[in-house]
Amino acid sequence: MHTALIVGTGLIGTSVALALRAEGVDTYLADLDGRALRSAAAHSGGKTEPPAGEVDVAVIAVPPDRVGGVLSALQKNGAAHAYTDVSSVKSRPIADALAQGCDLATFVGGHPMSGREKSGPLAAHADLFRGRPWVLTPTEDTEPAVLNQALELVALCGATPVVADAGEHDRAVALVSHAPHLLASLLAAQMSGADDFTLRLCGQGLRDQTRIAAGDPDLWAGILAANAGAVADVLERVGLEAGAAAAALRTAAVDAAEGPAQDGMDALRSLLHRGVQGQSRIPRHASANRATATMSVTVSDRPGELGRLFSDVAAAGVSIVDVTMDHPLEGPVATAELVVDAEVSRRLAADLAGRGWTLRW
Amino acid sequence: MHTALIVGTGLIGTSVALALRAEGVDTYLADLDGRALRSAAAHSGGKTEPPAGEVDVAVIAVPPDRVGGVLSALQKNGAAHAYTDVSSVKSRPIADALAQGCDLATFVGGHPMSGREKSGPLAAHADLFRGRPWVLTPTEDTEPAVLNQALELVALCGATPVVADAGEHDRAVALVSHAPHLLASLLAAQMSGADDFTLRLCGQGLRDQTRIAAGDPDLWAGILAANAGAVADVLERVGLEAGAAAAALRTAAVDAAEGPAQDGMDALRSLLHRGVQGQSRIPRHASANRATATMSVTVSDRPGELGRLFSDVAAAGVSIVDVTMDHPLEGPVATAELVVDAEVSRRLAADLAGRGWTLRW
Repeated sequence: MHTALIVGTGLIGTSVALALRAEGVDTYLADLDGRALRSAAAHSGGKTEPPAGEVDVAVIAVPPDRVGGVLSALQKNGAAHAYTDVSSVKSRPIADALAQGCDLATFVGGHPMSGREKSGPLAAHADLFRGRPWVLTPTEDTEPAVLNQALELVALCGATPVVADAGEHDRAVALVSHAPHLLASLLAAQMSGADDFTLRLCGQGLRDQTRIAAGDPDLWAGILAANAGAVADVLERVGLEAGAAAAALRTAAVDAAEGPAQDGMDALRSLLHRGVQGQSRIPRHASANRATATMSVTVSDRPGELGRLFSDVAAAGVSIVDVTMDHPLEGPVATAELVVDAEVSRRLAADLAGRGWTLRW
Repeated sequence: MHTALIVGTGLIGTSVALALRAEGVDTYLADLDGRALRSAAAHSGGKTEPPAGEVDVAVIAVPPDRVGGVLSALQKNGAAHAYTDVSSVKSRPIADALAQGCDLATFVGGHPMSGREKSGPLAAHADLFRGRPWVLTPTEDTEPAVLNQALELVALCGATPVVADAGEHDRAVALVSHAPHLLASLLAAQMSGADDFTLRLCGQGLRDQTRIAAGDPDLWAGILAANAGAVADVLERVGLEAGAAAAALRTAAVDAAEGPAQDGMDALRSLLHRGVQGQSRIPRHASANRATATMSVTVSDRPGELGRLFSDVAAAGVSIVDVTMDHPLEGPVATAELVVDAEVSRRLAADLAGRGWTLRW
């Protein structure tokens, strides 16, 4: 791959441009929003003038409902040998492309599993895709050479390609990403009417649980609309199960008033157990295959306190697998939860305690 | 306060014991589970023999459905001048205590807002309550001297007392803690049947959103049963709104097939906006009142890499407000998201870039 055209210079498009530029690919950018285009060009080193001829790959980095239209326009101009997109829905763009008379031989859908609640070219990063799955959804029409161009794109971005059927992809992301986003929004929305006393009782758990609800509503409305059926399937199930759990709680409330009968609680207890089981199936990062131990260290907010902690850990020759901060709402003391290899945890705990840190593990 | 009796030596009870021991209070422990009791005593320095006479305060640290029974037994023995509990539900224990003929003049309910998905005496920590709200729910029967003893307990544990009505407390924690826990379980439970392809697409967002679903099902079943009515109110609302969102998505799916009509999407877009608004109301820790900036730094998993990063940040004279790790499932590179004061962020970014770190902010 020598030349690429990125259409759409948001978080994903600009990150692809950064990754390709780092690998020496001649990269052209296009965006209807001139300001985003200039930001992305300044940030990534991509070119804003149109390419002189056909590029090797055109990466369509626009919301899912606009992929078909952009593909059609690009193909009419003969913009590229191969076309792919990076939107988070895969069936709808193919249907749109077909409806618009696109040539599906030169197109393969793609979805890099990256990005969080941020958006825009300034949040872009060459490493955004490193080590992440990047789903490709070739159809029977896709030419092998076009799939290979997309595989090269994925490799240049440092991601791991995963080939799947478009419908299978859409059902999977509905379950692990799109419906969870809507549920986080739903839960966060319950706080909009809460009084100050109630808000004061919010803890780290709720903060983590609702963080993604801060995502751009317009972006997410587009994603949800483009994968509406699959998301509705999950959400309907969750809605019914929430209703059933509420009914079980009503029964438990009556039981509690009348005596120790516990009919409603059996269903709830089984739901909680299913939750523990489901939660344990969600993969952690690669290092989660190692046996690890978690230790909680009390840190003050004095300048450099975390730096001193991590220096002490490094001085002990220990590598930190993961770190999470847990802050109380008030006061100058927080907890740093360090995940380290189990085999070194005892030595590290003794070492840190010896250096004056308060910890539990 | 000179003497205290802690009944129940789980995470909260043992942490109270540790905090009181650190302040020189003569602390006695009791637990039906001999192993937990011995662990807690070894960990906290509390005594396992019964106190010689009446203690100043008895802290009842058992699940909410057992508070009334324990209070009754303690009062019959004349165990303490003042009694309080630390369970996460406040109305039900008072009702149980009344039903068992307890003297409510010497009892005040309490709930320290601490603890995460861990439990047991070994996870206990003297700093667990530091800077956290600790709700106290006196009734009109509570003697002022008893409330003052509870306030002293809260102060000794380093927490901030918040006085509230028991029902008000229970509605608040149903909204910000109990119903969210059940929703996390519900969402996590959806993953129990997921195939490997689907699980591979899980990201950091879903991990954060379902983390609390790992909590002890029996402990949580007890909490939910004791606050069943208030939790059902929230869950019913969420269930109905999830169903309505699913219906809106069905409409959007039909619209998409038939043309650009977007009836269903208006409701969804408004839900997403309410989510953004509600999420923004959830307080962050005290330092969140400062203007901060977030920068994402690429870190490899070489030993000491995080230590080197935090040393470099400390060398720049910058204090880190918060840190989050974002790990891809595969590969040796992760992202550390550093939250720092906005006014020093530009200088820190330049400094870190100069030291060879790859970052975006």
